[in-house]
Amino acid sequence: MIYLDNAATSFPKPQPVVKAVAGAMIEFGANPGRSGHDMSVKTAEMVFETRELLNNFFEGYASEYVSFTTNCTYALNTAIKGVLKSGDHVVISSLEHNSVARPVYTLTERGIVTCSVFEVSENPDETVANLKKEIRSNTRLCVVTAVSNVFGNILPLERLSQVAHEGGALFFVDGAQGAGLIPISMQKQGIDCLCVPGHKGLLGPMGTGAILHNAIDFIPLAEGGTGSSSFDFLQPGTFPERLESGTLNVPGICGLKQGIKIVENIGVDNIRRVETDLCNRVFNGLREIKGVKLYSCDYNGDIYAPVLSFNVNEFHSEEVASLLNRGGIAVRGGYHCAPLAHISRGTKDSGTVRISPSFLTQKKDINYLLNLVRKIAFNNFI
Amino acid sequence: MIYLDNAATSFPKPQPVVKAVAGAMIEFGANPGRSGHDMSVKTAEMVFETRELLNNFFEGYASEYVSFTTNCTYALNTAIKGVLKSGDHVVISSLEHNSVARPVYTLTERGIVTCSVFEVSENPDETVANLKKEIRSNTRLCVVTAVSNVFGNILPLERLSQVAHEGGALFFVDGAQGAGLIPISMQKQGIDCLCVPGHKGLLGPMGTGAILHNAIDFIPLAEGGTGSSSFDFLQPGTFPERLESGTLNVPGICGLKQGIKIVENIGVDNIRRVETDLCNRVFNGLREIKGVKLYSCDYNGDIYAPVLSFNVNEFHSEEVASLLNRGGIAVRGGYHCAPLAHISRGTKDSGTVRISPSFLTQKKDINYLLNLVRKIAFNNFI
Repeated sequence: MIYLDNAATSFPKPQPVVKAVAGAMIEFGANPGRSGHDMSVKTAEMVFETRELLNNFFEGYASEYVSFTTNCTYALNTAIKGVLKSGDHVVISSLEHNSVARPVYTLTERGIVTCSVFEVSENPDETVANLKKEIRSNTRLCVVTAVSNVFGNILPLERLSQVAHEGGALFFVDGAQGAGLIPISMQKQGIDCLCVPGHKGLLGPMGTGAILHNAIDFIPLAEGGTGSSSFDFLQPGTFPERLESGTLNVPGICGLKQGIKIVENIGVDNIRRVETDLCNRVFNGLREIKGVKLYSCDYNGDIYAPVLSFNVNEFHSEEVASLLNRGGIAVRGGYHCAPLAHISRGTKDSGTVRISPSFLTQKKDINYLLNLVRKIAFNNFI
Repeated sequence: MIYLDNAATSFPKPQPVVKAVAGAMIEFGANPGRSGHDMSVKTAEMVFETRELLNNFFEGYASEYVSFTTNCTYALNTAIKGVLKSGDHVVISSLEHNSVARPVYTLTERGIVTCSVFEVSENPDETVANLKKEIRSNTRLCVVTAVSNVFGNILPLERLSQVAHEGGALFFVDGAQGAGLIPISMQKQGIDCLCVPGHKGLLGPMGTGAILHNAIDFIPLAEGGTGSSSFDFLQPGTFPERLESGTLNVPGICGLKQGIKIVENIGVDNIRRVETDLCNRVFNGLREIKGVKLYSCDYNGDIYAPVLSFNVNEFHSEEVASLLNRGGIAVRGGYHCAPLAHISRGTKDSGTVRISPSFLTQKKDINYLLNLVRKIAFNNFI
């Protein structure tokens, strides 16, 4: 199988990540931050080192402002619901995933907040101007994705955060597709809160994610045992445990630690260069095929991360994905849980076929993909 | 190290569980329920088989009413906050963990619900009568732990659920310490919702948990991508995905599947018999040591699960736990995130030293423990 579905979860995981996860179940087998015995303390240290690693990787504000979650979606729910209050206005981009759109729309449905969507253009100046138009006096929060999980657009985070901050709003980023693929610096880009999955560009296992923030006094999504201030019947105010109720995914965190180290060793820029080159090949190959529809004039690695969508003739994207699967290629068709993006780009009916290579993808795999798409487009697929 | 902290997380995990987790990262490396390619479908099937296994194990209502969570605490938060509405009254037991107490107290602090605590006695008749006294006309929910995580008391679930149901309330159970250690049947015991961790008695890895329920129309704690009804901006109504936002902990679930199979193979009753015998030895040994305080007259396997608390002289429990750690025994001292239980049993100042063996614990380990406690009690510990 040729796996081109890394935007869903990266595969294969590096061998050291698999080993770290399995090894953690033996070496770090105790519940961290609970008991005081040696293995519990050692496990807590490993978990804290992973916080430090994440904080350094994203140039965050402090390791204690890194809390682990089960995935990016829970991190985003924690962030969004933890900060919005009755009467607030929130602005999100036109490329948001349901992990942002659904919690925000749920709060609007309950009459708690109001919401605006600003259009992301291929021209960053327009994108920034579009956000500016939506900022109101009661805008408390702006949430944007770092990278569209459907079309790969990279959003101009630094400029958007400036606009949000000038309008008195907090600036939160969904790093689901960006983390590990484009450089993200919370401090330099003015990101007040960053939510990331561990299992995509950071190469960790599924079941991991994190919320990183700038000492924001979040109302937690869940309360429970934190191993601290046990006699306080309300959740402790101290971080990271304020946002970490119950037992953490210790093996997952240990794997994530290894994943981040590997990304650091290879270098985000190097990973991106390799994957951008692969996406260039896909783009240039696809645009030569009659009947293939692409969603930008060109593939430009400055404004597109290595995630790319297309369609073929009048096929629904799911059909194309299914045919590619029959040919041994794993991609995702459909809506990618991002209806806003499809409304924005006019792909509401067909969805899109999404290609997301990894730095391990071979050029010959891309050639094979292009051949199959050619056959599908020419109705030659057996 | 002699590990007697299985109530925090079971250790060591069986080798097949470790292998399953590592193997899942290779064999089930795709995001389930998202893409339609073979590996994604295969992964979704493995996840569904684990739902079926859990549903059968706890005699639940249907496999689709089993949703995976990152731990028992998130399952409990989902359950409690997903069902309580403004003006509701909720009753919890005097032995609840902070995973129940904190979400409930948070809702009372916000003025949304009112709460009563009923005392759990060693006499089940009294316990049942105590619950009955607290039921009011607006009691919407009763939440109890299956087993006290501090003192090991088994609660009379079936009788308590009858009282709750007669009062028109739902009956939810925190299975954190009970799952895998005592037989739990949702149908026979009238449990409307059961929350369990995967990493304790079910022998799975940390980072796993589940909520099982009787088709309850829960308001989700988190919304996000579910791989279904993507164009619905609100969370889908269908289970299990209504309560599963974002990517699942696939390796963890695969390990949990293996863990449950092992528990089934050995048999809950057999596990309990072995561990109860070990706890009997601990109890009988400790009560011979002058200066050791135990919290029941006898250790009776019918009303106590294999979790046992004690104290020594005027030592704080944390000191005793620390001394035992120096001697090579891993136990937990302190409050075990269960302040209500300590208030109920008068151990608010000292906390307790908690012993929780596994079915792999050796009798000689218990003898060694007793020797160390003897030395501590006689101030002979070097």
